[in-house]
Amino acid sequence: MCQHCVIDQVKERMLDRRSLLRGAAAAAAAATIGSIAAPAQAQAPTVAVSTSGVRDLTHELHPDFPTYFGDPQLRMVPKFTYKDNKFNLNEWVINEHTGTHMDAPLHFSPDGKSVAKIPVENLVVPLAIIDIRAKAASNPDAQVTPDDIKAWIAKNGPLPDRACVAMNSGWDAHVTGTKFRNADDKKVMHFPGFHVEAAKMLLETTTASGIAVDTLSLDFGPSPDFATHNAWLPSGRWGLEAVANLDRLPEKGAMLVVGAQKIRGGTGGPCRVFAFV
Amino acid sequence: MCQHCVIDQVKERMLDRRSLLRGAAAAAAAATIGSIAAPAQAQAPTVAVSTSGVRDLTHELHPDFPTYFGDPQLRMVPKFTYKDNKFNLNEWVINEHTGTHMDAPLHFSPDGKSVAKIPVENLVVPLAIIDIRAKAASNPDAQVTPDDIKAWIAKNGPLPDRACVAMNSGWDAHVTGTKFRNADDKKVMHFPGFHVEAAKMLLETTTASGIAVDTLSLDFGPSPDFATHNAWLPSGRWGLEAVANLDRLPEKGAMLVVGAQKIRGGTGGPCRVFAFV
Repeated sequence: MCQHCVIDQVKERMLDRRSLLRGAAAAAAAATIGSIAAPAQAQAPTVAVSTSGVRDLTHELHPDFPTYFGDPQLRMVPKFTYKDNKFNLNEWVINEHTGTHMDAPLHFSPDGKSVAKIPVENLVVPLAIIDIRAKAASNPDAQVTPDDIKAWIAKNGPLPDRACVAMNSGWDAHVTGTKFRNADDKKVMHFPGFHVEAAKMLLETTTASGIAVDTLSLDFGPSPDFATHNAWLPSGRWGLEAVANLDRLPEKGAMLVVGAQKIRGGTGGPCRVFAFV
Repeated sequence: MCQHCVIDQVKERMLDRRSLLRGAAAAAAAATIGSIAAPAQAQAPTVAVSTSGVRDLTHELHPDFPTYFGDPQLRMVPKFTYKDNKFNLNEWVINEHTGTHMDAPLHFSPDGKSVAKIPVENLVVPLAIIDIRAKAASNPDAQVTPDDIKAWIAKNGPLPDRACVAMNSGWDAHVTGTKFRNADDKKVMHFPGFHVEAAKMLLETTTASGIAVDTLSLDFGPSPDFATHNAWLPSGRWGLEAVANLDRLPEKGAMLVVGAQKIRGGTGGPCRVFAFV
């Protein structure tokens, strides 16, 4: 736990407004009510943020970054150069679903929310990390299942309101090699993802805003039908793909900040993703 | 001030690690030492963050968003459509310096930092807002001057370590009309910016990470030579242009989160920009 997480304890508890207005003393006051059952209308969780507690969950994007479809999805076209123009400026030709990126509801629905229409309060959310590294190490087709989610809850308590539930499969360690796509001789890919039943469980029993994976797809590599995409995104929730550095975070307690591009009509897009711990 | 800013008071003060480890009580303890002079090595500022305290400083970007050069700088090219493919996906053809966006040091230097190389600790920084709306209302060529910065300091105290110093000229209200570029019959634009002497003052006397404007350029519209760009960016610092909603923030006390695209070799790029208050 970061030394700055001084008011982590007040998460998901009702804070008395008058106490808060009295300033920092309120944090201590809130801590003293820690044993009181959470009220029916819990407020948004709060995290104390300082620069020293920021983690970057974003891979550096470049033209050779691995892609779901296999071909490059980014070209950099210099339009002005310092040598000729005394300044540098490029044009990007970029597929929305490249690098560490967002899947907006519109990606898998005829009229869902574009990336620009996702409410800000669903882009700054508690992060719950489900660690499936052990099973993914022995089975690249491993998936996050309802049992994995139940195990997380049994250990950590209920999923926070509006959480992003992230899969840490350890796959970001493979990002510079062919194992990130891990295609077999029939071009079928093999990497972990969310089982559709896990997505349905989150839909039916939680207020999760999004799910995140450290691989190229919300669905596991050999999926023939994007079952998880089709179950999750049309509900108005989002996904994040190719997230980095989840192993640098606690499984509970971080705040995720999704710097999604605010581009009208975008079905997603490369994101800068931070976590505050 | 947001009701969640319960430990706003501890900004820029040395916090005792042992006290912090005792949990939320430390916030109150830190508040009690508020009258003690800041130590030589102040820690990074801390802000209590909850979703209800997040402001979006990002304009929605679209193909007709106004640009410095005057021509459109974004094309959306549909590659897959729900009707034909059961999912939507676009390609973007986009100039790096479009919409609410970052100027990286590389933009105006032969070998400065690309947007991907800006340290994370310089992307989550205190925000100081200099309000020049009054003079900009009567003079579209108004600039942030050293006197404006001195006035801010006289009122608010020293600029926080690694701050972003932002110009609020009120220009974001014009973003949907021709006044955003405000070109005259000789095609010379007229909108506010940072005077080069203000940039030099920040360089010489502060640790500011960046400057931000609510207009199309760090330099004011009629600048013939990008003097501020050339003074500021080669130093390794960044700029933000076309920032929105600065009038929804206090002039001191917010934490800026710059969701800069992490694209290798980028001279900048569209950003998602949030402020936590």
